[in-house]
Amino acid sequence: VFVYERPVRFEDVDAARIVFFPKFLAYCHEAMEAMLASLDGGYAGLVVGRQIGMPAVRVEADFEAPLRFGDVVRIHVIVEQLGRTSCALRYELFNAKTSELSARIRHIVVLSDLRVLKKLPIPDDVRAELVKHVPASPESSSKL
Amino acid sequence: VFVYERPVRFEDVDAARIVFFPKFLAYCHEAMEAMLASLDGGYAGLVVGRQIGMPAVRVEADFEAPLRFGDVVRIHVIVEQLGRTSCALRYELFNAKTSELSARIRHIVVLSDLRVLKKLPIPDDVRAELVKHVPASPESSSKL
Amino acid sequence: VFVYERPVRFEDVDAARIVFFPKFLAYCHEAMEAMLASLDGGYAGLVVGRQIGMPAVRVEADFEAPLRFGDVVRIHVIVEQLGRTSCALRYELFNAKTSELSARIRHIVVLSDLRVLKKLPIPDDVRAELVKHVPASPESSSKL
Amino acid sequence: VFVYERPVRFEDVDAARIVFFPKFLAYCHEAMEAMLASLDGGYAGLVVGRQIGMPAVRVEADFEAPLRFGDVVRIHVIVEQLGRTSCALRYELFNAKTSELSARIRHIVVLSDLRVLKKLPIPDDVRAELVKHVPASPESSSKL
Repeated sequence: VFVYERPVRFEDVDAARIVFFPKFLAYCHEAMEAMLASLDGGYAGLVVGRQIGMPAVRVEADFEAPLRFGDVVRIHVIVEQLGRTSCALRYELFNAKTSELSARIRHIVVLSDLRVLKKLPIPDDVRAELVKHVPASPESSSKL
Repeated sequence: VFVYERPVRFEDVDAARIVFFPKFLAYCHEAMEAMLASLDGGYAGLVVGRQIGMPAVRVEADFEAPLRFGDVVRIHVIVEQLGRTSCALRYELFNAKTSELSARIRHIVVLSDLRVLKKLPIPDDVRAELVKHVPASPESSSKL
Repeated sequence: VFVYERPVRFEDVDAARIVFFPKFLAYCHEAMEAMLASLDGGYAGLVVGRQIGMPAVRVEADFEAPLRFGDVVRIHVIVEQLGRTSCALRYELFNAKTSELSARIRHIVVLSDLRVLKKLPIPDDVRAELVKHVPASPESSSKL
Repeated sequence: VFVYERPVRFEDVDAARIVFFPKFLAYCHEAMEAMLASLDGGYAGLVVGRQIGMPAVRVEADFEAPLRFGDVVRIHVIVEQLGRTSCALRYELFNAKTSELSARIRHIVVLSDLRVLKKLPIPDDVRAELVKHVPASPESSSKL
């Protein structure tokens, strides 16, 4: 499990004074980028340098408890499935102070050539990073 | 079907030069707010005035085709299910110029007292607005 | 004077429950884009199609009164100065319901080739749009 | 000088592929929050707990060089002036890898009671934090 933490920012909340729900997906994307930071040039090297991206094709999110300004979000990421061109990531977002579960998110991405937005086989170096986060045993792969 | 249009903004795209996927959910929220604009004081009257909100408890999104700066997104909204305290909204997002389907999103919200974040029965005036967007015949309610 | 209106969105406010101050600049950028909408392909045509942009080189903002969710912002834009490669825009942001002045913003942009981020002479079609919004008489050009 | 670093995020860039200029102000706000992190409960304790905020009344920004996805921004903050109810902060934003100056920003805030948005004398604990970042000698206080 890859773990990523970040504070909820002043501007992340909405008029209901809780984190705006689309922002949870942005938090997950940050966690994914952090998970791929050891790529040469990081995720930015992939996107800007090699013009390869990982656009979402499907997202499922269950929101369990709100987050507020002052909270810190702790995100656990696993690679649930790793295909030839696509990958399913699963995130559990916790309130880092209380360890309360805030959201569970499943995020399926397709490796894509950003110049033409066509899918690509996952490059070897990206696959090597992702495979590190595939849970070892089937039991650890809980369902969303 | 309630229809809402808005341009993709200069800042809505990401480093892959397509609309950042969490932004699709923000577009849907805008469409929901527009659908509830005839409430007294609009959606803001509900949230700020009456301290009642509609936080998401579940989102499912299928991304079919990217949107870019310069595109206009046209969103079709229906109320798929209307319960005592919760409501399932379904959105289809199109590129308004080409009519190409860009994403299908299902968004389940729970009417909530924002002071304590506890669920509430849907207020009559909110229900009266939502019920207008429940498709008349079962056939029209396609599945996500 | 070019006039542009837009509602304050649910997610535009911050934990202090007022529009997050950087968002005022985004509102101004929207107004500028709207002012240039009659360009062929709009501002997007310039940026994406011709790879010409108008990055800010200086901004001055005076914030007079906050905006909140439920407010509508009305923006008055004038072109204060029009040079060979740069342009000074001045915005007054009002609460559309009360006509209260919310902010005054001065925004200097430089026409730039986005491929190399080097300044460019303002293209004729862009200049033709901008010049429409230069106030006719010197008296009308109040200082920030 | 208080120093704060953060990466440019995937979604911070705009259709011109550089950091959207309003985002520079959000970066500065983050730096200010980090500078006040040693307050009891941090900046969130002030805003959410005590209902005291620091809304901007004036901002001046000079943009010298763009930032891109993959860059890290390093921000130097000083407290240029410290009044009874207001405070002038000065930020220099650098590309952390190249040390190139990206922007200089001056940000004047007024301590405010967020319930009524009226100015307040700077509370003692906030003043004690801010005063730590007032440059010792007049020479170090360069002009914007």
